[in-house]
Amino acid sequence: MQRFALIGAGFIGSVHAQSLAAHPDVDFRLVYDVDFGRAEALAGRHGARAARTLADAFDPAEVDAVFIASSTDTHAENLRRAADAGLAALVEKPIDLDLARAAETVAYVERAGIPVMVDFNRRFDRDHAELKRLVDAGEVGDVALVQLTSRGPALPPLEYLKVSGGQMRDQTVHFFDLARWITGLDPVEVFVAGSALADPRVAEIGDVDTSAATLRLSSGALVQIDSVRHTGYGYDERIEVLGSEGMAESGRMRAGGVTRFRGPHATSDGLHAGWFERVQPTYAAALGAFVSALETSAPMPATLRDGLAAQAIAEAAARSLITGRAEAIDLAL
Amino acid sequence: MQRFALIGAGFIGSVHAQSLAAHPDVDFRLVYDVDFGRAEALAGRHGARAARTLADAFDPAEVDAVFIASSTDTHAENLRRAADAGLAALVEKPIDLDLARAAETVAYVERAGIPVMVDFNRRFDRDHAELKRLVDAGEVGDVALVQLTSRGPALPPLEYLKVSGGQMRDQTVHFFDLARWITGLDPVEVFVAGSALADPRVAEIGDVDTSAATLRLSSGALVQIDSVRHTGYGYDERIEVLGSEGMAESGRMRAGGVTRFRGPHATSDGLHAGWFERVQPTYAAALGAFVSALETSAPMPATLRDGLAAQAIAEAAARSLITGRAEAIDLAL
Amino acid sequence: MQRFALIGAGFIGSVHAQSLAAHPDVDFRLVYDVDFGRAEALAGRHGARAARTLADAFDPAEVDAVFIASSTDTHAENLRRAADAGLAALVEKPIDLDLARAAETVAYVERAGIPVMVDFNRRFDRDHAELKRLVDAGEVGDVALVQLTSRGPALPPLEYLKVSGGQMRDQTVHFFDLARWITGLDPVEVFVAGSALADPRVAEIGDVDTSAATLRLSSGALVQIDSVRHTGYGYDERIEVLGSEGMAESGRMRAGGVTRFRGPHATSDGLHAGWFERVQPTYAAALGAFVSALETSAPMPATLRDGLAAQAIAEAAARSLITGRAEAIDLAL
Amino acid sequence: MQRFALIGAGFIGSVHAQSLAAHPDVDFRLVYDVDFGRAEALAGRHGARAARTLADAFDPAEVDAVFIASSTDTHAENLRRAADAGLAALVEKPIDLDLARAAETVAYVERAGIPVMVDFNRRFDRDHAELKRLVDAGEVGDVALVQLTSRGPALPPLEYLKVSGGQMRDQTVHFFDLARWITGLDPVEVFVAGSALADPRVAEIGDVDTSAATLRLSSGALVQIDSVRHTGYGYDERIEVLGSEGMAESGRMRAGGVTRFRGPHATSDGLHAGWFERVQPTYAAALGAFVSALETSAPMPATLRDGLAAQAIAEAAARSLITGRAEAIDLAL
Repeated sequence: MQRFALIGAGFIGSVHAQSLAAHPDVDFRLVYDVDFGRAEALAGRHGARAARTLADAFDPAEVDAVFIASSTDTHAENLRRAADAGLAALVEKPIDLDLARAAETVAYVERAGIPVMVDFNRRFDRDHAELKRLVDAGEVGDVALVQLTSRGPALPPLEYLKVSGGQMRDQTVHFFDLARWITGLDPVEVFVAGSALADPRVAEIGDVDTSAATLRLSSGALVQIDSVRHTGYGYDERIEVLGSEGMAESGRMRAGGVTRFRGPHATSDGLHAGWFERVQPTYAAALGAFVSALETSAPMPATLRDGLAAQAIAEAAARSLITGRAEAIDLAL
Repeated sequence: MQRFALIGAGFIGSVHAQSLAAHPDVDFRLVYDVDFGRAEALAGRHGARAARTLADAFDPAEVDAVFIASSTDTHAENLRRAADAGLAALVEKPIDLDLARAAETVAYVERAGIPVMVDFNRRFDRDHAELKRLVDAGEVGDVALVQLTSRGPALPPLEYLKVSGGQMRDQTVHFFDLARWITGLDPVEVFVAGSALADPRVAEIGDVDTSAATLRLSSGALVQIDSVRHTGYGYDERIEVLGSEGMAESGRMRAGGVTRFRGPHATSDGLHAGWFERVQPTYAAALGAFVSALETSAPMPATLRDGLAAQAIAEAAARSLITGRAEAIDLAL
Repeated sequence: MQRFALIGAGFIGSVHAQSLAAHPDVDFRLVYDVDFGRAEALAGRHGARAARTLADAFDPAEVDAVFIASSTDTHAENLRRAADAGLAALVEKPIDLDLARAAETVAYVERAGIPVMVDFNRRFDRDHAELKRLVDAGEVGDVALVQLTSRGPALPPLEYLKVSGGQMRDQTVHFFDLARWITGLDPVEVFVAGSALADPRVAEIGDVDTSAATLRLSSGALVQIDSVRHTGYGYDERIEVLGSEGMAESGRMRAGGVTRFRGPHATSDGLHAGWFERVQPTYAAALGAFVSALETSAPMPATLRDGLAAQAIAEAAARSLITGRAEAIDLAL
Repeated sequence: MQRFALIGAGFIGSVHAQSLAAHPDVDFRLVYDVDFGRAEALAGRHGARAARTLADAFDPAEVDAVFIASSTDTHAENLRRAADAGLAALVEKPIDLDLARAAETVAYVERAGIPVMVDFNRRFDRDHAELKRLVDAGEVGDVALVQLTSRGPALPPLEYLKVSGGQMRDQTVHFFDLARWITGLDPVEVFVAGSALADPRVAEIGDVDTSAATLRLSSGALVQIDSVRHTGYGYDERIEVLGSEGMAESGRMRAGGVTRFRGPHATSDGLHAGWFERVQPTYAAALGAFVSALETSAPMPATLRDGLAAQAIAEAAARSLITGRAEAIDLAL
């Protein structure tokens, strides 16, 4: 049984609170939030208590592990707190928006030797995980080409986009991680072309909403990632891996299985309305993997180094958007 | 908030216990089972108490509603207890294996006026419910032909089959209900052909494991139901409704979304391993519908009369298997 | 090289004329029709000549084989002519609308010993043929249940229906043949329920437009066939074979491969507009099989006995529609 | 009726010969090949004559149009001959492997004013054409992202690759054309990353067999094209167009419609074995469009300027493979 404190009681914190409450091997003890009332409300819904101070939430007498779901600018600080307190930590990405500071944080935490997992929840998608299993089992042979699609239904609010770090760091970063994870290979360079097509104001804030990224992996294999902020047809996420022996894909997931046949067309249920509906089951699965690794002292299924690598790729990708050329990726951080 | 007692702590009782524990508007109080230890174990896992006696479980001072998931031969008795105690009841089908006794029970309970729902959980399948919505909305026009497929992965143990009442009463009865529910029409006659193909001992106990039923509805529309006990490819359940304006179907549900392409074939994830994996989400949905009807005093989404009708069709179907001719169905019970 | 005369220059005759003209091993010589002008026009389009008399068309000095595509009531007579002239014959079904006369014709022709094939063109559908190959190869194990769907887009003209012999003899007969062919098993009894739903005048002429047939095969395996005259969504033909080891299907064929995603739905190309668009490739394939059997003296892929069997099943099916009970099928004709 | 000469009796010439012979409005007169015997054999199979000399094949007294399917290095010369003779021409791409010489040829032919169509046969694929119709009709709104997949089953012989001009000019060029055609937009720059993964000798001849191209269109919309020479699972060609209002795709085409269900998997017919099986119907359709444009004096559905544009994009793409940066595309040739 692992005793948990949840740091952050916003939207994603409340999602994690549900997973914590439902997990049979978790004792969900504390919730901390800068807004104490919000912490109290969330804790109350799940039989936990609200922590008065951050120090209370990181008290090893009370908890074994913290789930860091606070605002992005506090991830690094909270990771250091966990390291200082000797607590295990499950942390939302990114480690820190500044790559250098993220790298320092990782080094600091590694010296402390606590178990840490970055919450790359898409690694726990049922179909993506099966795809990785097939690739690892050699069913497609040597990887030659990976195609990832990441498309959200509608442009997030501009206020959000302004502080998001840009499409590469906010959206595509998940797929940089998936590409590394599925292939087991690191990328050596990245090229990205992007446009602001959904709303001209996206260009005004120096960002793009539609982009095409190409990665070259260390083996020479290639990766294509298309990232779109506005589809008009729901949330579309897919992965295709082509290798020397064949191809496997984690296909487009439909929100339902009903089809209507009338006249010359067949109309089926489309995709999920948004990313949350699509990836919801991955949150509990990711927490389950973290708890299981803790209890068996197994390696973490997504390390801080993985988090750092995804960020480093995103930085190079953001540069390529500006330079118009393939940018080298340095993962020796 | 509805206070519940669960009657029966076997496999299906434990499934319902999870739904009861997770429902935000349910106060899961008591579990009763003829095996007190089993009741205690199940209650303990979900923060409920084990009832010492049936009377304790039906105590209106303790609970507002009972979930009757005890063995089939006790359904009728427990329904009468709920009626006597003035408790709402959610009951597993069948009401009673004997149709006459089932009819008497329904009359008794109706006189008491308690809210009762028969747990036809398949009505709460995401896709089946959407199909019904489409048919009700007139999207296929007047119904002409309904095709239902009900195929289980492997023959249940012979010991189970011997007491099951036969394929019509045990398996196909769910689909007799779905046919009535989706079309809003009553059948007037039924023909069934059946064989024991999976295991010759099925014939020895007077049952079949593969059957084809044809119903004629009051409008003249037709229904085909194929029921199979052994597929070798998992659990296969589908419904297709053809009408004057087109067709709609609740299609074959896949257990996953990964496809491998090698050589001349594409291999996709197949069907769910068994019926439970396929219909699991329907249990919580059915409970939710019952609670919602209780709280809003709305009509029950599946009444005792619906339960009785499905049983009456199953009786006629079982007769047709023997007579080799279409048997009339009398729903005026 | 086989020299052919085509008997009948109506719609289906003109379809066969194209196949005859395109086949590399066919010398398409003559066209006969009761309307000489029509024969002349069709022959002219394909470099053949119009025959003045039936005798000319059956002249062994001119042709090696005849393709009998004349009106139904002349099939038997033309088969006897082919037998008398010692010509090979490819004949449209049915042999004769009267089963006894059909049986006599078959006996007469068999005594003459000419090679004859009944044009059960659906046996040459790409997917149906592959399905049969799989079943023959044992990939589904012992057949337990076969599901056939036969649905036309719109009710044919009443004038046609009046002389068609009824839905069993005109439409379902093709699927009686497919059931025997794919399973390699003969049916022993048949039950059919039917209704006139598309147009009440169908009932006035003693026919049905929507029917559900159940066959019991000699092994105990069951067959379900749904036959519909009016879908509102195009032409729908499918076959599913479930056996002791698994299932295989020749699925719903789409008229195109384009899908549009907008809002919550995905709209795909639907089915073929009509039966002709769906089965068109089978005509040339059937002719090819006949020619190939002629040139290699191989057994015909669909014999007169097959044609007779399908008709005998249709007769029993038509009786069952009236009696409301399963009718025995006697294939010892 | 259009009288045709076919120039070139190799593999692709023999494909075109079949289309010419089958087209009702084509009088297939002559076949020319540098190997007279080969011309004679092909002509003989289709009721045409072999031309002794090129001059004979371009004789306006004999023919109205030429189909130029000779070796690549003779396309430009044969186009000039057609221009000089005042004959219409349907020409295989490319116009000439050298872009400057191709541009001169186009200018020369345009001065002559003859009707010319480049045989971009993929424009006549049933599904691609429907996709373009949808995009033109505004069903996806303003185009934002186009994804094209072009994957062949197995590496062509090295001898072929050596003279092919490289993957961009030989394979991807078709998809550069499709991207322009479907969107109605010209690209302004292109980036390509490529690797030789199927066979190291591909790198030795300075070519790639796996590549990812990104185009920026004049509107800012993006195009991704993945080109693969070796799949191990057949021929895979798809197009997806995402716009401001939704998405449409010309999906993966299957070679058959049979699915087998056994155990936990469903195995379906896969893709076509090779490009020819997949695109075969497009050849007759392209010829039909050319003849129809000739007979109605309509604009050609694929002009020499279209051919030149595709080549210019391929040149820039080939440069980008070397420079590692996005290369500008100049279509003002």
